[in-house]
Amino acid sequence: MNSFTFYNPTQLVFGKDSIEKLPAMINQFTSGTKVLITYGGGSIKRTGLYDRVIGLLEGFEVFELEGIEPNPRLSTVKKGVQLVKDNNIDFILAIGGGSVIDGTKLISAASTIDEDPWKIVTREVTPTAAVPFGTILTIAATGSEMNSGSVITNWETNEKLGWGSPLVFPKFSLLNPEVTYTLPKNQTVNGIVDSMSHLLEQYFNEADNSAVGDAMIAGVMKAIMKAGLAVQDEPENYEARETLMIGATVALNGFMRMGYNGDWATHNIEHAVSAVHDIAHGAGLAVLFPAWMTYVSGKSPERFAQFAEDVFDVDASLPQEEKVKAGIAGITDYWKAIGAPSSLSEFDIPESDFEVFADKTLFNGPFGNFYKLNKEDVIEIYKLAH
Amino acid sequence: MNSFTFYNPTQLVFGKDSIEKLPAMINQFTSGTKVLITYGGGSIKRTGLYDRVIGLLEGFEVFELEGIEPNPRLSTVKKGVQLVKDNNIDFILAIGGGSVIDGTKLISAASTIDEDPWKIVTREVTPTAAVPFGTILTIAATGSEMNSGSVITNWETNEKLGWGSPLVFPKFSLLNPEVTYTLPKNQTVNGIVDSMSHLLEQYFNEADNSAVGDAMIAGVMKAIMKAGLAVQDEPENYEARETLMIGATVALNGFMRMGYNGDWATHNIEHAVSAVHDIAHGAGLAVLFPAWMTYVSGKSPERFAQFAEDVFDVDASLPQEEKVKAGIAGITDYWKAIGAPSSLSEFDIPESDFEVFADKTLFNGPFGNFYKLNKEDVIEIYKLAH
Repeated sequence: MNSFTFYNPTQLVFGKDSIEKLPAMINQFTSGTKVLITYGGGSIKRTGLYDRVIGLLEGFEVFELEGIEPNPRLSTVKKGVQLVKDNNIDFILAIGGGSVIDGTKLISAASTIDEDPWKIVTREVTPTAAVPFGTILTIAATGSEMNSGSVITNWETNEKLGWGSPLVFPKFSLLNPEVTYTLPKNQTVNGIVDSMSHLLEQYFNEADNSAVGDAMIAGVMKAIMKAGLAVQDEPENYEARETLMIGATVALNGFMRMGYNGDWATHNIEHAVSAVHDIAHGAGLAVLFPAWMTYVSGKSPERFAQFAEDVFDVDASLPQEEKVKAGIAGITDYWKAIGAPSSLSEFDIPESDFEVFADKTLFNGPFGNFYKLNKEDVIEIYKLAH
Repeated sequence: MNSFTFYNPTQLVFGKDSIEKLPAMINQFTSGTKVLITYGGGSIKRTGLYDRVIGLLEGFEVFELEGIEPNPRLSTVKKGVQLVKDNNIDFILAIGGGSVIDGTKLISAASTIDEDPWKIVTREVTPTAAVPFGTILTIAATGSEMNSGSVITNWETNEKLGWGSPLVFPKFSLLNPEVTYTLPKNQTVNGIVDSMSHLLEQYFNEADNSAVGDAMIAGVMKAIMKAGLAVQDEPENYEARETLMIGATVALNGFMRMGYNGDWATHNIEHAVSAVHDIAHGAGLAVLFPAWMTYVSGKSPERFAQFAEDVFDVDASLPQEEKVKAGIAGITDYWKAIGAPSSLSEFDIPESDFEVFADKTLFNGPFGNFYKLNKEDVIEIYKLAH
């Protein structure tokens, strides 16, 4: 293990009664009454969640930022910052999934500076304060509800970049699994792929010892996979929705990664694609992870054999090569079973784009903490995903 | 799962370089310079840790409370409270294991009230403030370094009671696995039993769904058991010490118990013994857990069969009864392998005490969240442990 500091002050409030705690939760963090709610498209209005929240916010003066995109855009963040500054907002409430929360994190931090919010993402400006915010989660996926990371897309420069700050941990997140009953099936699936991908990124890490992390990751993966199958035919299976929701949160709130960094190459490879083509992050990861696994397992097979044993209970006595194959097949078969996409060509992404994508991934040089990738490697992975 | 709120603001600092961060960590929480260090016997002086800490505290005015007992005593806590009040202490630093940290938690909270500290333990007084404190951990065992619970023994009344408050999360805990190299073997073993027992208490819970918790608990148990064997012959195996230390912390910092309560009957049964006989908590648990498992598995075998599959990879196709036996044997065999005690009679505890113990356990009526025990049940469990 590496030396590390774990710190996560988010209050996670979980259960069928969690959303009703909203006013009391906000009052912990401000004596003010001006609340900005941020959300995406109209789905929270269709499902009634919007009306429920407005009802709970009686007594607060409510401002709204509607239309935070999947792959949240800098341009929308700027609108939010303007709203906060113009109205002296006391507290921000993000209602949505990872995109809404990620966008809100940048609004929260950028509202305290006088410069372009993008400078926080590019690390030209380090925020020293943030407007407090909480979340009501509507999809089990990114884990943004309990971490301090955020990914923002700048369509002026076709860049999609991650940033983070301990200032932008949500003060609280309210998680009611019932809210996810009405998700379109492909969003549920993308969410499962997203949380599984976070676990995969962390399983393939650079540490010489990650016994506790390995064990927790393998266990959470198994629990998510089982629940993910259960919701395919029964979207209102409460226990399965519970497991998917808490599973997605713990997959990226720091619990799993004490003492190592995770690989994170595949996320970078995916961001390069969705910075240019507006495809869902989870869908991109579904296509790219097996390709990354196939490519890297040829270079570093031991860990992939261990993965097959830990996650798919593959017989330890089998030859290494067979174990490696069984582990990768375990993931691709699971993607198929839940109806996740399997090839970049399904999104009409031409092979001629790969060179551009690869250059984007390498903006900071070779990358990947488990296995370092250069440009040729990245192009091979895109080809395997095609 | 039940509705729950998870909140844990402790900064966990882990690694070979963690202790050197002490002055910077303290300065995060106070601008004052008066630090009370609390510790147990002389072991930190023998190992050099005391001198190292004193060196790091240059520039602070250091006060000391030496002699916090295993099973920390109310009388010692009162001395600490007096020191804090007399000297206007700004920050408390606990150097030790669960006993020192548990005692320090009560000093921290009781220094802000004018009444007997015991009233906090008995819930007659609810503290509204606490002197900030941090810890340097010297043994992997109780998890007290990253939770808000504490157990205090009152020898005037022969009571050993747990209490907790969100005010007494350590502000930080510094964990260097190397510090545990020099522990006496029986302390290492008791620590392993203690953290395993915490996982067992939580595995046997009352929830109808705890898929993510189950998976994490089973995984962490396996990792601890493997590392626990490795240190038997090689006390300076750094990786194994890492695993034991982080494993003990996550075993009781709330990660494992999202959405359920755990049983906790065996801890109550053990506290009744060590409130009267001054035996190590871990040793008591080693004896009592297999007895509890044997007794309760007869009443509620399904979960014990699942336990055997999850933790000891027992073949799922075996008859339930065989699986139940294999799971309990898995624990008792492991205790033997690491040299943990196996019978109350090893401590010269006579059967005639069982009635008194049982009455103590029932001070709040029947107890145990997985399986509710009454007086007859408790006496049967003591007999099984004899």
